[in-house]
Amino acid sequence: MANPLFDDRTVDFVLHDLLDASSLCRLPHFAEHGRETFDLYLTSCRKLAREQLFPAYRPMDTDTPRLEGGQVRVHPAMRELWSRMVELGIINASTPMELGGQQLPALLSVMGNAYLMAGNLSAAGYAGLTTGAAHLIEEFGDERLKRDYMARMYAGDWAGTMALTEPQAGSSLADVRTRATPTAEGHYLISGNKVFISGGDQDITENVVHLALARIDGAPAGTKGVSLFCVPKRRLINGTLIDNDCASAGVFHKLGWRGLPSIALNFGERGDCHGYLVGEAGRGLAHMFVMMNGARLMVGATATATASAAFHESLDYARTRPQGRPLAVRDPLTPQVPIIEHADVRRMLLRQKAIIEGSLALCAQAAKWADEAAHETDPEAKKRAQLLLDLITPATKTFPAEKGFESCALALQIFGGYGYTSEYPAESYLRDQKLNTLHEGTTGIQGMDLLGRKVMGDGGAGLQILSAEIAQAIEAARAAGDAQAPLSSLATQLEQAVADLGATTMELAQRGISGDRLGMMRHSTDYLEMFSLIAISWLWLRMATRATQSIAATPARGPFLRGKLKTAQYWFATDLPRTASIGALIRSGEESFDSARGEELE
Amino acid sequence: MANPLFDDRTVDFVLHDLLDASSLCRLPHFAEHGRETFDLYLTSCRKLAREQLFPAYRPMDTDTPRLEGGQVRVHPAMRELWSRMVELGIINASTPMELGGQQLPALLSVMGNAYLMAGNLSAAGYAGLTTGAAHLIEEFGDERLKRDYMARMYAGDWAGTMALTEPQAGSSLADVRTRATPTAEGHYLISGNKVFISGGDQDITENVVHLALARIDGAPAGTKGVSLFCVPKRRLINGTLIDNDCASAGVFHKLGWRGLPSIALNFGERGDCHGYLVGEAGRGLAHMFVMMNGARLMVGATATATASAAFHESLDYARTRPQGRPLAVRDPLTPQVPIIEHADVRRMLLRQKAIIEGSLALCAQAAKWADEAAHETDPEAKKRAQLLLDLITPATKTFPAEKGFESCALALQIFGGYGYTSEYPAESYLRDQKLNTLHEGTTGIQGMDLLGRKVMGDGGAGLQILSAEIAQAIEAARAAGDAQAPLSSLATQLEQAVADLGATTMELAQRGISGDRLGMMRHSTDYLEMFSLIAISWLWLRMATRATQSIAATPARGPFLRGKLKTAQYWFATDLPRTASIGALIRSGEESFDSARGEELE
Repeated sequence: MANPLFDDRTVDFVLHDLLDASSLCRLPHFAEHGRETFDLYLTSCRKLAREQLFPAYRPMDTDTPRLEGGQVRVHPAMRELWSRMVELGIINASTPMELGGQQLPALLSVMGNAYLMAGNLSAAGYAGLTTGAAHLIEEFGDERLKRDYMARMYAGDWAGTMALTEPQAGSSLADVRTRATPTAEGHYLISGNKVFISGGDQDITENVVHLALARIDGAPAGTKGVSLFCVPKRRLINGTLIDNDCASAGVFHKLGWRGLPSIALNFGERGDCHGYLVGEAGRGLAHMFVMMNGARLMVGATATATASAAFHESLDYARTRPQGRPLAVRDPLTPQVPIIEHADVRRMLLRQKAIIEGSLALCAQAAKWADEAAHETDPEAKKRAQLLLDLITPATKTFPAEKGFESCALALQIFGGYGYTSEYPAESYLRDQKLNTLHEGTTGIQGMDLLGRKVMGDGGAGLQILSAEIAQAIEAARAAGDAQAPLSSLATQLEQAVADLGATTMELAQRGISGDRLGMMRHSTDYLEMFSLIAISWLWLRMATRATQSIAATPARGPFLRGKLKTAQYWFATDLPRTASIGALIRSGEESFDSARGEELE
Repeated sequence: MANPLFDDRTVDFVLHDLLDASSLCRLPHFAEHGRETFDLYLTSCRKLAREQLFPAYRPMDTDTPRLEGGQVRVHPAMRELWSRMVELGIINASTPMELGGQQLPALLSVMGNAYLMAGNLSAAGYAGLTTGAAHLIEEFGDERLKRDYMARMYAGDWAGTMALTEPQAGSSLADVRTRATPTAEGHYLISGNKVFISGGDQDITENVVHLALARIDGAPAGTKGVSLFCVPKRRLINGTLIDNDCASAGVFHKLGWRGLPSIALNFGERGDCHGYLVGEAGRGLAHMFVMMNGARLMVGATATATASAAFHESLDYARTRPQGRPLAVRDPLTPQVPIIEHADVRRMLLRQKAIIEGSLALCAQAAKWADEAAHETDPEAKKRAQLLLDLITPATKTFPAEKGFESCALALQIFGGYGYTSEYPAESYLRDQKLNTLHEGTTGIQGMDLLGRKVMGDGGAGLQILSAEIAQAIEAARAAGDAQAPLSSLATQLEQAVADLGATTMELAQRGISGDRLGMMRHSTDYLEMFSLIAISWLWLRMATRATQSIAATPARGPFLRGKLKTAQYWFATDLPRTASIGALIRSGEESFDSARGEELE
């Protein structure tokens, strides 16, 4: 069976049963839209992902980009795929109509992108990067940059990249060294080296526009001296493109995402690399961070997508691969059974499903909050959505990445020895997935962001609002509870875990207040895990509640909806209980690892 | 700094402080040995691993074996490496002196092999497979096979393989189809297809001897019809080697272990493949399983080795890579600090250390029991050691493989974005590691073996003996406890977890007795995890006890020994507590995944 990439019914369930996507159309910004246009967009994405992107996935993984005579050559299939994505309006799906976009909610563009990423994450990656770069110009660029660069990027004529990282500045972007020297003509001369620039060069589009961080001569050290620049591969001068001195110094060999080149770029080797300031001088990181929630949400969605594609491969294999016999059958003359008949294989399948659908719901919820934060007309509602989005973003980025890696390992495991070979794509999904715990802020960075900024930073407002949301879901679950589905027992379990999270947070806040900031932050990664498990459990409780409410009304969806209930039960039996020991660990202040030094660590 | 592969002091600590390796020399079989010969062997292995094997690791990962004109060509460095391993007596380290071996305890050969595997697992793999195959002939073969084949394999003239798997028979070896037709001359004509045969062909040695499972014509279906054969690539007839019709049909492209080819073999395409029965007809699987504890122990040791090599790379990187500043430092003009200064990086380092040293102790303990099971003179002690070895083997195979994969992912994570590239070997260790949850019985198979056979099979005798061992360690910890090291609190924690395991086991036994075998086995993988976490905690408690006892006597080892204490504390704070929720899960009989069917799983 061809890989469906995602289960359409589940995506629709998350969009409509769980999140009532159409309700976004009450907002003026989305007034032109409705369920019909949403469905139209999703249907196109599904088709493109399955029919065009997916068939090119393995060839692009195998036949990887290379640098030839200063020009990066990518897989020849990419030109056609790029055109198809442009035609479909992937790049500007959420862009305002006045800029030629479709003005769709982020919720829809994220879900559509999830299909594309599941089909071929490298191919879809070119488009996602272009959207991100163009969006930065849209938000902060001047009219000339919008006209000359942004418009051509949204139109798909040119592609874009994010050029942040340097050899000495990865997690610590405050240490960026690339220089920007002002000129009398208004542009800056850029010089410096960037690494890990995804899509940093290619032969798909005639131009590549880098949104790069650099330091204007004389700027102060640290974050306040970092500015954002538009640095095109070819600059547009009087309607003509001329080389802009951005040299590709090498292509990194990567574990996965092999169809999307990661480039080392040298700006200004000949002293002729022009850069154009985007936004305010010294506000480069701040501008970049406006986009960060979106970028991190896309990582979560991609991680979910990769895990989902792997899951469907393993489900198909489990249904068709005969091996062994049921425990009760001793007769070797009976035929072997499909491995899905073995309890442990079903465990590995349901565990993947729990991780993937929990992740999908998390990304979708975050995207909906992003839409509300951007387009709510009521200032209170807008602020509330922004607080929730800020709070949930580290989990939205990390949970799908970390647990999605476990999920991909389970998918591979179902293939047994075959999973270790390139006869099946399980091994490539595992390779692809690992990037997601690293880029756009490592897991460790996300933990510090969650605890230090998002939870503690606003006096706990975000967590209070989320706790109220969870309390509401608990109430709804209790109201919908019936004998068949032990919703109220799940609700009680979640209630306890949330109380535990509250107590843990208070304990950490007290450490912070008493001046022990290290003590507060020591277990930030553990805190992120506890928080994420609870967030996912909250979403599963809501999905189980919706499923219970819907079974009577739509009996044809019975098996599908029972699957949601079973998966919720599984998750509450296996993963939510882990929050108790993580909470105890955090509160204990256990510091063996932190105090270990020198030989003690060898 | 060059990668040490393992910390020598830790290996010595496990061998001598924890396990008193020299005490094995009380057994007549090891009477010729002592600490001095042990050290000599280990020193040679360390040197070979660091100076010869390790430098060839990355080249062999990159420049992989290929099939040319029916002959598999491996990396040219392998011939030299093979000679060095043969010279050092790797292949026959534990073989009796009368067969030309060194008659070393398995404990030493496993620890020596751990260095070699950490240095270059593909290269060491050729030797390990040869030992295993020769050992099968030693145990079950007739004199001619011993003289013609085994002797040349132990001497390193020829290599060996295990040829078990077929396309339709992986986990279910009862379904092997390869045929063996008796001839009047005494040999059998073999025909059939084998897959995933590691080292199944190469151009290092002039011959490759396959120990293959096949079914004699007319044999019954199932396991009882499977026999073991010696099937050489070239057969020896009157002192001359002639082609034996074993065709290499292809080389599998693998995620890792890329220096060791995995081959599809066709036996008897021309009807001229001779096989020689090894042991009794119909006892092939039973014979193979005599070797299985050893093979599974080697998987555990290899998984530990791979994780250890990755750990040392990440430790070195963490000490030398500057990035970011301490939480308390706001001044961007201060230099960046090595990332080991960040608490979360130290957490990732200590977590790897806890997994790796726990795994190492587990493998070493299992190897020591293997030595006692084979060579104890007192029948009671012999039987006791065999029960313990049988019981611990599934955990020895699985824990280092599953947690070692997590460990390798942490090592990669420490490298940040660089870890995703082939600039550093972290990504290759992650790729190598994944095989260990698959081969020699998947994790699911190990769980069923532990619970269904090892725990329940002997009326619980093995678990009773292990529980008594653990009780003894708890008592010793309490006796050694002092204010500095909270040994007695660790002891109490472990006591509780063991009681929990006992109660869980009783509950499952009752399900089995009442005829609910599926209910007993449903959570066998979870049971294996719970069991493994407790076994590792037991070993950490013993190591912490020994460290506490030694600190006063050897103050120079202070930091080293304090490292053991801290790591034990870390493990007891983070991982042992997880057994409570796993135990509750198992006892609850949670069956959502097992009852999920059809659409419910989609």
